Amino acid sequence: MPDRTRKTLARSPITRGVPAATIGVPNRTGAAMPPFRDLIRDVPDFPKPGVVFKDIGPLLADPAGFAACIEALGAPWRGLAVGRTPDGSVPVDVICGVESRGFIFGAALAQAMGTGFVPLRKVGKLPPPTLGIDYELEYGSARLEIGADGIVPGTRVLLVDDVLATGGTFDAARRLLEQVGAMVVGAAVVIEIDALRGRARWPEAVPLHALLHC
Amino acid sequence: MPDRTRKTLARSPITRGVPAATIGVPNRTGAAMPPFRDLIRDVPDFPKPGVVFKDIGPLLADPAGFAACIEALGAPWRGLAVGRTPDGSVPVDVICGVESRGFIFGAALAQAMGTGFVPLRKVGKLPPPTLGIDYELEYGSARLEIGADGIVPGTRVLLVDDVLATGGTFDAARRLLEQVGAMVVGAAVVIEIDALRGRARWPEAVPLHALLHC
Repeated sequence: MPDRTRKTLARSPITRGVPAATIGVPNRTGAAMPPFRDLIRDVPDFPKPGVVFKDIGPLLADPAGFAACIEALGAPWRGLAVGRTPDGSVPVDVICGVESRGFIFGAALAQAMGTGFVPLRKVGKLPPPTLGIDYELEYGSARLEIGADGIVPGTRVLLVDDVLATGGTFDAARRLLEQVGAMVVGAAVVIEIDALRGRARWPEAVPLHALLHC
Repeated sequence: MPDRTRKTLARSPITRGVPAATIGVPNRTGAAMPPFRDLIRDVPDFPKPGVVFKDIGPLLADPAGFAACIEALGAPWRGLAVGRTPDGSVPVDVICGVESRGFIFGAALAQAMGTGFVPLRKVGKLPPPTLGIDYELEYGSARLEIGADGIVPGTRVLLVDDVLATGGTFDAARRLLEQVGAMVVGAAVVIEIDALRGRARWPEAVPLHALLHC
């Protein structure tokens, strides 16, 4: 194993005897934060002055950190907390990830949970037929697209992204999924930036779990 | 389970008694192709006239197909075929995926193999410090970037993408990884388009496994 991997593993709090079962359980009570928090780096003034970018690069690159993060993202959607369907299947059929960083967490989670994965992409990236939704950004607008055959009505979708900020993209993603007949059963993000109040744009009745709050 | 999932599972050859161990073993001998081949759709004239786009959407959306694909991508890098290092670890430390579809397969494979994941991104997406490489495309040029701290010298990297076409992006990715001191131990793609001869730009001494050939 090369030096860097050994070093990050040794440095990672994950290796300091934290039971796997307690890692990353969504924190709504002020309990200890997941240990992989230390693997997210603040980058000031990126992508523009005044913005502090949350760099998840060190988290992804750390084998134990990445694995613990995916385990934690999936935890609320497994077992008794959510309940299982009568046929014993997990209550999520498909994970949708938002381009591009949402692909990383979403696809890894789909692999871990044994679900399919449906990408939500920027305009022009998916082959026809597609369905799309236009939405407003802080400056200008954007469009999110999905393959028209990607979801059939009634599919239970878990929406995944890295960061919940103002919530504009997440809101558009949810509305697009509902337009194609999906049942959005929940959402999972690694980081929620509380001050930007993205959660206010998400329906209260639909669980939205964040592993970390900043 | 919604109708669509049930239908695709029933239709998928994966459920027709193919032993898991034989699914997707890289095909160099003309043996039967992996059963998830049927989940890749040809889209003519996308993204431009005359090009046939390989749509991996149905493969990703099918739980059994996606799982079998990731299992097959990882198979050559586990166990006796490659051998294990003296300390018993797998011979891959980190998986690098190329933006954006390479993120989906690469991150899922990293999750399955228990490695870290390092994204190779388009220009301007990664926070500083980054290192990059410019390379030629059929029309114009492009730049691929990596976090400057993402890889330390000696890290054993497996490079992952969805399609190997002309090989330009893969060649640039390999050279960039070598510039930062990585040991590129191999590459894995879902689809190799043989006629575009991308393999000719890859070093013969480094294993490059493709699950499907078109």
